[in-house]
Amino acid sequence: MKRLNNGVCSPEGFTDIGKSVGIKKSKRKDLAVIFSKKICQASAVYTQNKVIGAPLIITQDHLKDGKAQAVIVNSGIANVCTGNKGLEDSKMIASLLAKELDINEMNVIVSSTGLIGKFLPLNKIQRGISGIKQELSIKSSSGEAILTTDKMIKEIAIQAENFTIGAIAKGSGMIHPNMATMLCFITTDADISSKRLKSMLKIAVEDSFNSVSVDMDTSTSDMVTIMANGLAGKVNEGRFQEVLNQVCIFLAKKIASDGEGATKLLVVDVLNAISKIDAKKLARSVVSSNLVKCAVYGSDPNWGRLICAMGNSNAKFDLETIDIYIGDEKIVKDGKGLSFDQKSVKKEMDKKEVKIVIDLKQDKFNATAFGCDMTEEYIRINSLYTT
Amino acid sequence: MKRLNNGVCSPEGFTDIGKSVGIKKSKRKDLAVIFSKKICQASAVYTQNKVIGAPLIITQDHLKDGKAQAVIVNSGIANVCTGNKGLEDSKMIASLLAKELDINEMNVIVSSTGLIGKFLPLNKIQRGISGIKQELSIKSSSGEAILTTDKMIKEIAIQAENFTIGAIAKGSGMIHPNMATMLCFITTDADISSKRLKSMLKIAVEDSFNSVSVDMDTSTSDMVTIMANGLAGKVNEGRFQEVLNQVCIFLAKKIASDGEGATKLLVVDVLNAISKIDAKKLARSVVSSNLVKCAVYGSDPNWGRLICAMGNSNAKFDLETIDIYIGDEKIVKDGKGLSFDQKSVKKEMDKKEVKIVIDLKQDKFNATAFGCDMTEEYIRINSLYTT
Repeated sequence: MKRLNNGVCSPEGFTDIGKSVGIKKSKRKDLAVIFSKKICQASAVYTQNKVIGAPLIITQDHLKDGKAQAVIVNSGIANVCTGNKGLEDSKMIASLLAKELDINEMNVIVSSTGLIGKFLPLNKIQRGISGIKQELSIKSSSGEAILTTDKMIKEIAIQAENFTIGAIAKGSGMIHPNMATMLCFITTDADISSKRLKSMLKIAVEDSFNSVSVDMDTSTSDMVTIMANGLAGKVNEGRFQEVLNQVCIFLAKKIASDGEGATKLLVVDVLNAISKIDAKKLARSVVSSNLVKCAVYGSDPNWGRLICAMGNSNAKFDLETIDIYIGDEKIVKDGKGLSFDQKSVKKEMDKKEVKIVIDLKQDKFNATAFGCDMTEEYIRINSLYTT
Repeated sequence: MKRLNNGVCSPEGFTDIGKSVGIKKSKRKDLAVIFSKKICQASAVYTQNKVIGAPLIITQDHLKDGKAQAVIVNSGIANVCTGNKGLEDSKMIASLLAKELDINEMNVIVSSTGLIGKFLPLNKIQRGISGIKQELSIKSSSGEAILTTDKMIKEIAIQAENFTIGAIAKGSGMIHPNMATMLCFITTDADISSKRLKSMLKIAVEDSFNSVSVDMDTSTSDMVTIMANGLAGKVNEGRFQEVLNQVCIFLAKKIASDGEGATKLLVVDVLNAISKIDAKKLARSVVSSNLVKCAVYGSDPNWGRLICAMGNSNAKFDLETIDIYIGDEKIVKDGKGLSFDQKSVKKEMDKKEVKIVIDLKQDKFNATAFGCDMTEEYIRINSLYTT
């Protein structure tokens, strides 16, 4: 297994482009296209918010046949709460790109992220699409163009045996479990049917993107798509699932640690719960608690807040058997606080990646959730990031 | 109907005391006792967190017979996650107070609020209880002694017809719907059975304390109790319910506007939903959203975040019929943004009480939820408030 550097362009047959077309005021890149020279088997998972953006409705329609050949994403405006005009706009974008790339418009995945309630500047996007065929390359420049409040590009590519998986992702606010919590576009040269891709993607997303929480808010625009162009031929599916999981967990952690205003990644392991569902609920509840996130920011081993968040999860556990560790330091045994070495614990909490392990000692089911600390900067970003 | 100034001591037959016994390092008041000269009919509602503090377990036991004569509350330490010793401690406190006041220890309501996982300093509390009988007065000094991170005393008393209801409350962090979201102790001289008190309290709490959210965290220690000593005789129960609701809503709003770090009270009205449950879910989801709270802090009419929070509520609504008002300013009509007067809207959002009205225009069910903005100060309080 080998890490490659070219993100979504690492698998054979994929090219991309990220550019600025003027949707964002800042002149930062705001339009991305990913293209496969061969039609792909494709699938996606979508936000579980009841309000979903126009691009998702169009993409769901386009992916009904399990086929795709290109992705077009803009950042800056989400095209949500835009009624029929919003739907027409997303369709138009797919159609413009299809014409430019000489492909079927039904094989275009459309996505938008940014402000809700504004219309897309179609003329700017049209100008941006025009001539894009010549601009496509294997430089992996799309990762930058899908960002909003993100501070870092999130991409990865892994080669294993005969296939490669590449991916880019974005997300730093409005991120919460139980959905495709952000945008992620995955490419691969493996030959796999869209039906198998769907079930494999669901598994990979469950323990990665669906286990990330930044701020309890689940966005209206989010999706994870996967496109497999088959150029590498048939693959070992067990192995493929393994690599896909790894790609998604890598990006999920990147998203968590780039949470708005975050200074630390928070990883919460719940061990030995009585069911997988209970383990997940507990880990996600802890990682989502504002009070826990503030305590992590302040390097304060306030384990009462961990227990409080667990109590709010609606999951089953026995208070009398809980052990809690921060990093390697045990601070709670059988539900009662230990007198621990303050200095060592503070050292663990000052790390860029803070690990909390909650061992329930009841049965054998484990889960991990990813989050971040909560800081004054989160407030500043979200009280100033304006309509 | 008349407002009185003496909080829990306003109804006939009640006295109280708030004092410092050294549980808090700061020398602020930390022990409160409320006493009725006559045994009361009594009831309570409790936190819905799965982890509940020792005092709640003892109080539940003591209130099984629907009778109480005194409340003892300490702030500073919550006596949660303290095992059998914690239970013994709470029982001991009830017993010490009962001896001092010459009442039955089964008629003592015990409550604690503050840090989780620490044992109470029993000797300090014992010293504080000793001689307290002489210190009881109608000065209404208990309200201050139950506070933790609160910045203001929360008390009210209303006289109507032949009865009076008085109450004190605390709460500014770890506050979230679906429980008795904080501490509140209600006294009245009305003659009402504990059974009727229970059902009336449930009604009053549902639209007040259970409609407040400060930070999505539901504490382990919270309860609302009511004691009726009957000295005013039989009352009109419809009227009593009305006044009780008003007392609870008044205190709920006080708690919301004193939310940790808050600068504004946020009131969200959802109108004309298809059911009461949907209306409540929507109002509570909006008032709980970190992103909405940050937008309110920044006086940013980012209505996309309101819609996003509604979409996350799991409630039913039709995006196409939503109107949204900030104060009197209409900013959304039929799910689409209006071009509104930025200045007037900003003025509405700069008020100490920001009102958001979401009219679904579907049926006739309404609900209101109370919250506050989210500020850098919330982060500072919760990353520094330490174990």
